[in-house]
Amino acid sequence: MRLGRVSGTVHATVKDAQLTGRALLLVDVTDGAGKVLEPARIAVDTCGAGVGDVVMITEGSAARMPTGMAGAPVDAAIIAVIDGVSVEQ
Amino acid sequence: MRLGRVSGTVHATVKDAQLTGRALLLVDVTDGAGKVLEPARIAVDTCGAGVGDVVMITEGSAARMPTGMAGAPVDAAIIAVIDGVSVEQ
Amino acid sequence: MRLGRVSGTVHATVKDAQLTGRALLLVDVTDGAGKVLEPARIAVDTCGAGVGDVVMITEGSAARMPTGMAGAPVDAAIIAVIDGVSVEQ
Amino acid sequence: MRLGRVSGTVHATVKDAQLTGRALLLVDVTDGAGKVLEPARIAVDTCGAGVGDVVMITEGSAARMPTGMAGAPVDAAIIAVIDGVSVEQ
Amino acid sequence: MRLGRVSGTVHATVKDAQLTGRALLLVDVTDGAGKVLEPARIAVDTCGAGVGDVVMITEGSAARMPTGMAGAPVDAAIIAVIDGVSVEQ
Repeated sequence: MRLGRVSGTVHATVKDAQLTGRALLLVDVTDGAGKVLEPARIAVDTCGAGVGDVVMITEGSAARMPTGMAGAPVDAAIIAVIDGVSVEQ
Repeated sequence: MRLGRVSGTVHATVKDAQLTGRALLLVDVTDGAGKVLEPARIAVDTCGAGVGDVVMITEGSAARMPTGMAGAPVDAAIIAVIDGVSVEQ
Repeated sequence: MRLGRVSGTVHATVKDAQLTGRALLLVDVTDGAGKVLEPARIAVDTCGAGVGDVVMITEGSAARMPTGMAGAPVDAAIIAVIDGVSVEQ
Repeated sequence: MRLGRVSGTVHATVKDAQLTGRALLLVDVTDGAGKVLEPARIAVDTCGAGVGDVVMITEGSAARMPTGMAGAPVDAAIIAVIDGVSVEQ
Repeated sequence: MRLGRVSGTVHATVKDAQLTGRALLLVDVTDGAGKVLEPARIAVDTCGAGVGDVVMITEGSAARMPTGMAGAPVDAAIIAVIDGVSVEQ
C-alpha cells in the first residue's frame, strides 16, 4: 500500500456503469513526511475520505477486495484514513 | 486509475482476434493540470472516447472488468470521459 | 498496452517447459515517434512478429489471455503488429 | 520480491474491516547494501517483523497468498525477516 | 519478462512456510548488453540457476505459474537460464 493526500475530485458523466455513485478522488502519493512521490493517482473511496485527508491506498487487483468492489473496473482504492505515521530514524 | 489525454489511434491488421472491432487509443497519462507523466499508453476504448478527450484509464486486470472485456488480452482501458477535475491547493 | 520495436531474440535451453517452442523476443518499448521509453522487455510472440517490427505488447496477467497462453509463466506478450500510429498534436 | 527496512508504523482508526488487528508497517525498499530504492511502501506484516528489521516484501496479488490474507485488500506483505544477503561482485 | 544477472543469495529463517526449501536469489535486472536497469530484485529459482548466471525472470501473478509455485507468495521467478541474446541494431 502507499500513503497519499487527497488533493481533489474527478467528475465524469460518461463512465462505466459500475462507477455510478462512487467518489473518485485525486490522490498525491507521498512518503511518511508528506513529500509527493507520484502525483494524480485516482482512487475510488471506500472509507468516506475527503479532500485534505491523509489516506492509505491499495493498488492493482487488491482494489477490488473491499466490500462492494468485486467486479468493478478499479485499480486503486482508498482503504484507510491515516491518524498518524510513526517514523524511526 | 490515472488521468490522460487521447493523442492518437493505433492501427493493426495482424492482431489478437479478441481485439477485432475495438478502438485502440494512444493516451498520454497526465496529472490534474495536464502535464504529461507517461506518454504513449495504449488503451482499449469502452466509452466512445475520441482524440483530444481527457479520460480516465484503469490498468492491469481491472481493464478486463468492463462489459465485453472479460478474457480480452488488454492491460489498460478507458472507463470514463472526464468532465472536470477539482484540485484544492 | 504499449508500443515497441522488436530488437532481438533470446535463446535458452534450460527453461520452463511451457515455454518450449515459443519465440521469446526482445522488445524496446517506445512512444509513438519511436523514442525508447524502456529497453529490453522480453515478450512471448503470439502474432508471428519478427526483428524490426513495430508491435503492441500487453503486460501482466493479460499476457496469459491469448489463445494457448493460459497457465504459461509469461508477463508480456506481443498481441499485434502495428501498421501505423496516427498522432494528433 | 524486494528487500527493505522497516522504518515505522502506520495508525488508522477508519479502515477496511479486513485490516483490523493487522500491523501495517512502513518499509523503505533497498538494494543489497541498504541503499533506499523506493521509500514509504506500506506492507502488512505476516512474520512478526518490527521497526529496524531487514525484511523481504512481496507485492501485487502475491500479498494475498500468505495464511489469513485471502480476500484482504493488500498489495504488499512482509513474508520474511532477512538474516543476511550474500552478494558476489 | 526481463533479463537479469544473479548477483547473490538471500537467507531467512523466519519466513512464509511456502518458501521453505526454495532458493531466493538476488537478481540485477539488465538490458541485452548487461547494463543494470533495476538492482536487487529477489526471485524464487525454478531452474537450478546460480550466482553469475544470466537469467530470465517473470513477474507478478505469472511467477505462480511454474510447477510447484501455485499459491506461493512470490511475485518474481527465474524461469530460464539464458544461453544468448541476439540484438540487431
